[in-house]
Amino acid sequence: MASTIIPTIKFLSQPTSLAWVEQAIAHLDTILLDHSHCERKAAGAALNLMFRYPSSSHLVRQLTKIAQEELEHFEQVNQWLERREIPLAPLNAPPYGAKLKAQIRHNEPQRLLDSLLVCALIEARSHERLGLLAQYCPEPELGAFYRGLMASEARHYGIYWVLASRYCDRQEVEQRLEELANLESEILVTLHPEPRIHS
Amino acid sequence: MASTIIPTIKFLSQPTSLAWVEQAIAHLDTILLDHSHCERKAAGAALNLMFRYPSSSHLVRQLTKIAQEELEHFEQVNQWLERREIPLAPLNAPPYGAKLKAQIRHNEPQRLLDSLLVCALIEARSHERLGLLAQYCPEPELGAFYRGLMASEARHYGIYWVLASRYCDRQEVEQRLEELANLESEILVTLHPEPRIHS
Repeated sequence: MASTIIPTIKFLSQPTSLAWVEQAIAHLDTILLDHSHCERKAAGAALNLMFRYPSSSHLVRQLTKIAQEELEHFEQVNQWLERREIPLAPLNAPPYGAKLKAQIRHNEPQRLLDSLLVCALIEARSHERLGLLAQYCPEPELGAFYRGLMASEARHYGIYWVLASRYCDRQEVEQRLEELANLESEILVTLHPEPRIHS
Repeated sequence: MASTIIPTIKFLSQPTSLAWVEQAIAHLDTILLDHSHCERKAAGAALNLMFRYPSSSHLVRQLTKIAQEELEHFEQVNQWLERREIPLAPLNAPPYGAKLKAQIRHNEPQRLLDSLLVCALIEARSHERLGLLAQYCPEPELGAFYRGLMASEARHYGIYWVLASRYCDRQEVEQRLEELANLESEILVTLHPEPRIHS
């Protein structure tokens, strides 16, 4: 295998390294547990935005759909955990999420723009990495499960991006996305020692 | 009509007063908007508990279902708002929720017990009041909608109560429920001047 994986998801500045794939494949159970946490957090992120912008009907409608889908995936991942007898347990979060969230500016409308783009990037990276798990997972049934989730993750990052473009100036969206995408890839250049979806 | 409405939901210490029914029927649009906020908050409450107790598989499974149903109801209420051309807008919350949450003790396992019982009581009161709206609403189609939601609310307060009984000492559950139910009814004795589901 090459040291990076192509093709790059258009949204992301840099593709995931082979080192992450090797780490993930060697720790499938931990990755599955972390994935459960990620789905719950993704539902929480959508709901938080619904609480912060309760009057934006279109935004609220789209976020409701995302939250519902994330909860469905959360359930599905938990069924996999149960089947493998992996107890639900807390896991230290990798620095990825906190570092990205630290980039969200505090004043509106920048806060909305940054929040939507951070969500978009996390979804885009999840989409890419679930795709890698689908491709390289040595267990065909689990691989098929990951493949099945990929389409939703792709739809989600698309929705977040479209929302950003709807509520914010298009040129500013492009420019900020580039900045945040570069940072997102930079965070992942150093593989976090604990295996995670976003290590 | 009598000044109180019978029968009392078993869970609740006192039934809702006629004054609330009159206030609600006179402000159906505001009640519908507040109901939308209530459904979103109910989903948020379930999700918050999932974040606080991520390792309790059974609890997490039950709360996931509740959060999913609340989001479905949230969507349905929002469709009603759209149909009536009521824009999604923030509304001052009545003191009800904050006063109940102030009763949640800070140390475990009391915190879990109180959180579950507060959720149970809010769902029980919602169930009772949606039933009253179903009964007294002058618009048959809207009344039928409220009737349709009642069963879920009843199931939800049952689930929260069963969870409390599963994770906490049964006798303590009974005693604390009585205390909190008395307080819950007391909060509602004085009708809040702004029409709300929990005014």
